[in-house]
Amino acid sequence: MGSHMDSVRPLDASQLRYAYTTAPREVPDAKILTGTHKTICTDHIIVASWNVESGWSVPELKPYGPFSLLPSASCLHYAYECFEGLKAYRGHDGKLRMFRTDCNSRRLLMSAERISLPQFDPDELEKLIYALLSVEGTKWLPKSRAGDFLYVRPTIIGTDSQLGVARPTEALLYIIVGYMARMDTPAGGKRLLTNPDDMVRSWVGGFGYAKVGANYGPSVLATQEAYRRGYHQILWLYGPEGNCTEACGSNFFVIWKRKDGKKELITAPLDDQLILNGVTRRSCLDLARERLKDELEATERKFTIGEIQEAAAEGRLLESFAAGTAWFITPIAMIHHHGKDINIPTGPDGTPTEITGRIKGWLGDMMYGRVEHEWARVVPEKELKNFKIKRDILYH
Amino acid sequence: MGSHMDSVRPLDASQLRYAYTTAPREVPDAKILTGTHKTICTDHIIVASWNVESGWSVPELKPYGPFSLLPSASCLHYAYECFEGLKAYRGHDGKLRMFRTDCNSRRLLMSAERISLPQFDPDELEKLIYALLSVEGTKWLPKSRAGDFLYVRPTIIGTDSQLGVARPTEALLYIIVGYMARMDTPAGGKRLLTNPDDMVRSWVGGFGYAKVGANYGPSVLATQEAYRRGYHQILWLYGPEGNCTEACGSNFFVIWKRKDGKKELITAPLDDQLILNGVTRRSCLDLARERLKDELEATERKFTIGEIQEAAAEGRLLESFAAGTAWFITPIAMIHHHGKDINIPTGPDGTPTEITGRIKGWLGDMMYGRVEHEWARVVPEKELKNFKIKRDILYH
Repeated sequence: MGSHMDSVRPLDASQLRYAYTTAPREVPDAKILTGTHKTICTDHIIVASWNVESGWSVPELKPYGPFSLLPSASCLHYAYECFEGLKAYRGHDGKLRMFRTDCNSRRLLMSAERISLPQFDPDELEKLIYALLSVEGTKWLPKSRAGDFLYVRPTIIGTDSQLGVARPTEALLYIIVGYMARMDTPAGGKRLLTNPDDMVRSWVGGFGYAKVGANYGPSVLATQEAYRRGYHQILWLYGPEGNCTEACGSNFFVIWKRKDGKKELITAPLDDQLILNGVTRRSCLDLARERLKDELEATERKFTIGEIQEAAAEGRLLESFAAGTAWFITPIAMIHHHGKDINIPTGPDGTPTEITGRIKGWLGDMMYGRVEHEWARVVPEKELKNFKIKRDILYH
Repeated sequence: MGSHMDSVRPLDASQLRYAYTTAPREVPDAKILTGTHKTICTDHIIVASWNVESGWSVPELKPYGPFSLLPSASCLHYAYECFEGLKAYRGHDGKLRMFRTDCNSRRLLMSAERISLPQFDPDELEKLIYALLSVEGTKWLPKSRAGDFLYVRPTIIGTDSQLGVARPTEALLYIIVGYMARMDTPAGGKRLLTNPDDMVRSWVGGFGYAKVGANYGPSVLATQEAYRRGYHQILWLYGPEGNCTEACGSNFFVIWKRKDGKKELITAPLDDQLILNGVTRRSCLDLARERLKDELEATERKFTIGEIQEAAAEGRLLESFAAGTAWFITPIAMIHHHGKDINIPTGPDGTPTEITGRIKGWLGDMMYGRVEHEWARVVPEKELKNFKIKRDILYH
């Protein structure tokens, strides 16, 4: 923070005002969620507005609904937008948990700084996330749905109506909660296509490490082509050597036997700022270093698609998976590169094999309360039998 | 277009419906425009919505006002947004003109394709732009303001409420018109700062050539630092050689005497897709090749900051200017690179010197009707004495 703290009034979760909906919506049946491509959001949203002169407004929890934005709003022209993706998990013990929310809150602050959006104390954002889930969790992820999750999306957008390209002087932070389809179990495992030679997702000196909108929309043209050809995602390579970076929306891991005979869990490094510093990525590395240190070495360094091909040809390629909040841990069964398939061992029908399965199991156990771990914190739930509207605080 | 034409119903300007405002606003005094950082828009907006199943809606000209957008709208998360910037010029002969709108319309189509937004016939967009100016021009840029301009901003945004990163299935095209401050005459000429070594605006294989939001917000962090240090804009260099690309928001031109003694007007090439294919850039090159061919060679090729320094040291650096719709033709008086100033000759107090002045003059003459030229087309103006609302077509 320090010199970058440009808010006059800081974001303050302790001042959160509650204005509950008078028109609570029906919780959809689980089966509806696979059939729609629209995100179904819960009853409430938390919002806090900011302007350069007065700082952050008092945050409000209020009914979910559309925003009113001027056509000249800067988020609609210059991609002044950054976000986070988290999940709230309904445990098998009936409790609601969130996972390493401190990492996401700090990352949103970093993304906001990169895209010239306002600064805030990430602890306050974390409290707001918990406050929203405290209200929404019981109804939208009832105890009958143990093993299921809600998706949580904190977002900051520039809202000033200034068409000249300038640093935003007005912004809006909001948190929404919705259903998202489970994506970690594609039949037969995930199939990746390496990027077209004439496209690069991010570059040294760019912003590939920040969770800003500008990293997402531009990558979709290549992803569409991957879908059309029957693949699930692009594996983005970088530079003439073909360094593996990420699978756009998830980090990319390989488990192989090195030429020196040592087993290695490897993923791209953070230091050249090409990839997102994923929370699931970090957790996989931490767990591997703590619990698998006698079996393998967990490394963050550059590795190329050529090295993967060579390992496959020599029978040293053991496993590969994508890791991220949305995709969780998804085994990768195949990578198609320059006309050739690289096949990767998986369990039956693309299920996780050894190391991938153990890491996925450990993380899932924490998230769904089969084991207690400091990374997964219980969300205290409000028992709201009757929503009451408080008009005096909704419209201030 | 061809296989990329994914609209079922095409965008059709001939079906434009008019619903005039019942609350026309007051035209601000010219002096108000320098004091505000908010863009003041005119009375009306043109909108057309799109969805993947039915294609484009009937376009509507209707009162300017806020949009209603869901917090999960894809434009707020994944930078599904692209735009154009044009001007309408009030001529000294009383006529309203626009400049090479066909170039902007085709470029918006190209940008939309790059960011996975829907396709359209650029001729139809051009007709809509003219239709809006036909209505707004007389009131908002009256004949008493000869030599002045309005700024025109066609925009397309993704509007579907799908939080998974996917190609938009719903979008909105709109055109707004507003006032923008004149920016082509900073006192003493424009001062550029080369980008920080650890930042790159665009890269080979990226999207620097498209007018998408994702090119703008991320560059502002560097621009803010330039402002803080007293410069007007960043000059973005590329690669270890330090190739000059663009001044973010405008193309960059140098006029120098080459080592072979030949005078040259030089700007970065388009073929590596690092820079925007500027309409003003193209016009400068066309005019130089047509009208200055006996005096200089106009070239589009790579050139480095080192070559500029060398030319300055040897007395061969003659002029430099930024070219773009917003900045028009702005003489550059100085470039600061790695701790050293490169001073560039300008006229008194940063006014254009020889070649820059002649090109600026030719373009201004076309825009403001001092000479007739095919690039500047007259907008036929509707004389709307009384705005009448037609509710039946406003709410269909």
